[in-house]
Amino acid sequence: MAEHDALPLVVLTEQFAKLPGIGMKSAARLAYHVMSMDAEEVEEFAQALLNAKRTVHYCRICENLTDQELCPVCDDPTRDHTTICVVEQPKDIAAFERTGEFHGVYHVLHGLISPLRGVLPDDLRIRSLVARVQQGQVQEVIMATNPTVEGDATAAYIAQLLTPLGVKVTRLAFGLPVGGMLEYADEVTLYKALENRNIM
Amino acid sequence: MAEHDALPLVVLTEQFAKLPGIGMKSAARLAYHVMSMDAEEVEEFAQALLNAKRTVHYCRICENLTDQELCPVCDDPTRDHTTICVVEQPKDIAAFERTGEFHGVYHVLHGLISPLRGVLPDDLRIRSLVARVQQGQVQEVIMATNPTVEGDATAAYIAQLLTPLGVKVTRLAFGLPVGGMLEYADEVTLYKALENRNIM
Repeated sequence: MAEHDALPLVVLTEQFAKLPGIGMKSAARLAYHVMSMDAEEVEEFAQALLNAKRTVHYCRICENLTDQELCPVCDDPTRDHTTICVVEQPKDIAAFERTGEFHGVYHVLHGLISPLRGVLPDDLRIRSLVARVQQGQVQEVIMATNPTVEGDATAAYIAQLLTPLGVKVTRLAFGLPVGGMLEYADEVTLYKALENRNIM
Repeated sequence: MAEHDALPLVVLTEQFAKLPGIGMKSAARLAYHVMSMDAEEVEEFAQALLNAKRTVHYCRICENLTDQELCPVCDDPTRDHTTICVVEQPKDIAAFERTGEFHGVYHVLHGLISPLRGVLPDDLRIRSLVARVQQGQVQEVIMATNPTVEGDATAAYIAQLLTPLGVKVTRLAFGLPVGGMLEYADEVTLYKALENRNIM
């Protein structure tokens, strides 16, 4: 995009370039693509943006994104509401749902504690998690944050808050990925796999 | 995105996934990102989409995208209006403008002839190019389509139409890219470089 380009195209390019993972070149390509779309298609796209932002909010219980008062999981009486799986982001829930093996409910933190990036515990949805546990029905909280420094630290911080409330706090197991090859595993993963070895 | 996701988010994801080069996973990431944007930012994005589509159209002379009646190049009396550089897409103009060495005007075809993809000469902006040449002031038309089968075929087709009108039709030179290495050049490029060799 340069001075010979139409200003509204430059503005649209800059908007695309604000999105994560989209540089100025890709943004320009997307803006040109919008020019080749039908006017109705562009209206639909703009409407989808506004509609998602206006109608989607956090579930009153688990903080997942929903356009209802409660998300479908919290609203489902057949789920096990005594087991909460704590995840960093809404998209992590999709991974668990795909396994079809988790029948409990979720809690979305919307981030990880990271003093370096200025993210403190109060910036995350931790208070609502503590409040859920304080209600007394929850029996187990599974910390399912990523196995990174920040994920581990956040899990440890929350475990420290919840354990005194008399609830069982667990952490996902770490080890070799199924189908993975020993020779390609990094040292930490291999160490975890050794440490957490099971009797056959 | 799955059944536990809010429907407006699924709709937005599908809209992003329609864009070129964006798969379902990236689209979901972008949709989640929109949720984390301020409401005003989302409004600006939607407005930029609608505004670009509503106000940007084809220049009456050269078919480039513009929000004015004429694009800045066609509207510039200091440009050489007797030399037309014919390109496939609006973004090709940016490449020539960056060289700072072309002082003529442009004509944008908005595609290349490709019978296999159902793109026939009448689907491109060829008639308006012929009409420009027929007005009699144009002295040279430089075919600057890409050096591909379709780019060459389109250039040849247009040259056939324009030559009888008494205008000089030229094609960009093909050869080794400046700074390129002989050993990495493909055979066709090397053959072109040999064929078009110049006296030193």
